[in-house]
Amino acid sequence: MSTRMVFTALPGLPLVQPGDDLATLVLEGLQRADLTLQPGDVLGVAQKIVSKSEGRLRDLRQVTPSPEALELAEKSQKDARVVELLLGESRQVLRTRPGLIVVEHKLGFICANAGIDHSNVKGAAPGEWVLLLPADPDASAARLRKRLADQSGVGCGVVIVDSHGRAWRHGTVGAAIGLAGLPGLLDLRGCPDLFGRTLRVTQVGLADEIAAAASLLLGQADEATPVVHIRGVPHATGTGTMREIIRPEEEDLFR
Amino acid sequence: MSTRMVFTALPGLPLVQPGDDLATLVLEGLQRADLTLQPGDVLGVAQKIVSKSEGRLRDLRQVTPSPEALELAEKSQKDARVVELLLGESRQVLRTRPGLIVVEHKLGFICANAGIDHSNVKGAAPGEWVLLLPADPDASAARLRKRLADQSGVGCGVVIVDSHGRAWRHGTVGAAIGLAGLPGLLDLRGCPDLFGRTLRVTQVGLADEIAAAASLLLGQADEATPVVHIRGVPHATGTGTMREIIRPEEEDLFR
Repeated sequence: MSTRMVFTALPGLPLVQPGDDLATLVLEGLQRADLTLQPGDVLGVAQKIVSKSEGRLRDLRQVTPSPEALELAEKSQKDARVVELLLGESRQVLRTRPGLIVVEHKLGFICANAGIDHSNVKGAAPGEWVLLLPADPDASAARLRKRLADQSGVGCGVVIVDSHGRAWRHGTVGAAIGLAGLPGLLDLRGCPDLFGRTLRVTQVGLADEIAAAASLLLGQADEATPVVHIRGVPHATGTGTMREIIRPEEEDLFR
Repeated sequence: MSTRMVFTALPGLPLVQPGDDLATLVLEGLQRADLTLQPGDVLGVAQKIVSKSEGRLRDLRQVTPSPEALELAEKSQKDARVVELLLGESRQVLRTRPGLIVVEHKLGFICANAGIDHSNVKGAAPGEWVLLLPADPDASAARLRKRLADQSGVGCGVVIVDSHGRAWRHGTVGAAIGLAGLPGLLDLRGCPDLFGRTLRVTQVGLADEIAAAASLLLGQADEATPVVHIRGVPHATGTGTMREIIRPEEEDLFR
């Protein structure tokens, strides 16, 4: 097992625009950091640049809120056009209070405001452009992984990282919303502990721990560092999907 | 801002016993790893060794379950003696199902089984010894920080790490249960983004992201690596407490 992990924020990435090829930007960033991909490496990639490269920008000036969105907007004191987009991205609204709508996203995540983001959107006047989550983040991660493998010869892990609030704690933490080339969960069931007993601990949220760690370096106030290269994470090879991670509604004790 | 973080699992730490001085063990581990503490460094420390050094072991053979514990044990299919200890550690039981009791711990955390741990306890026969959380983990972190500063001249950050389940996701992730010498939350409110807009994102769960990251190297199946040295985390200096992090019940939308 590795005893050292190194996280490097890739320097000098340009602002991402719709249609940009993230693999090329990542490989250029790796080069600037004097890094070459090795098996077992993982890339933590900010959701924002994935969404932007995939053209998930929406112009609020072209959104007409439905009666349902108008009602929820009043209750939550949010922009009704944003609420309209949010409803389109969600399976159900779980909680509402002023400034906050917690939903089950169509992708299965429980998150605030359906992951729709106001800030850091380049383009028109402030407040008019917003950014949706990628349509299929696992597929986005797999595409990036494949493009990188085609160009570098190495299949690394990819975790797409968003910031999520928690039910019982203040502060957001980085969480995986898409992954490829590594397990979402690490199954330690059945591993003996130091004294030969079988551990009852079940599964470790590997991809989410990597996302939280990468988030420490991913730019918060800007997009200057939207990709983090990670070397040395134990067990970060194989395959995985968000479907492992998302707890089905019937198991949810707190909905 | 740093662009590189390095996490090193300290090698060669002995199994911790009640009364052991963790500061001495940590400094010896740093020396074996050829590291000396620098300002801004953080140590991620597994809860288990903090609890053990503080003598938080309990012998189930000396526990007599109350009627309330017997009833909850039947409902949850758990050892009634463990349930008795769990009730003593908790403010309230939030959810119960076979194999799981989710509580509000006296320390404020929402966690499974009050953080009581069966495995990896050296001593008597398997199943008879369990380990409670430290009585005051912030104070434990502050003591370790002070002892390290006394001996090394450097006041580093300390995060005590436990593994927590999540309401909506499978898998456990490392979470802070005590801290000293760094902020629990990073307040980015009011920071302008790249385009000069003021970010609405509120607060980042810095100590929890560090805990999750450290957890990638903290021994899961054994105690071989219960301390991780971390260098290069942005903003990881100052002061903090778990009280920043724990969401008060009146704000909780999901209890």
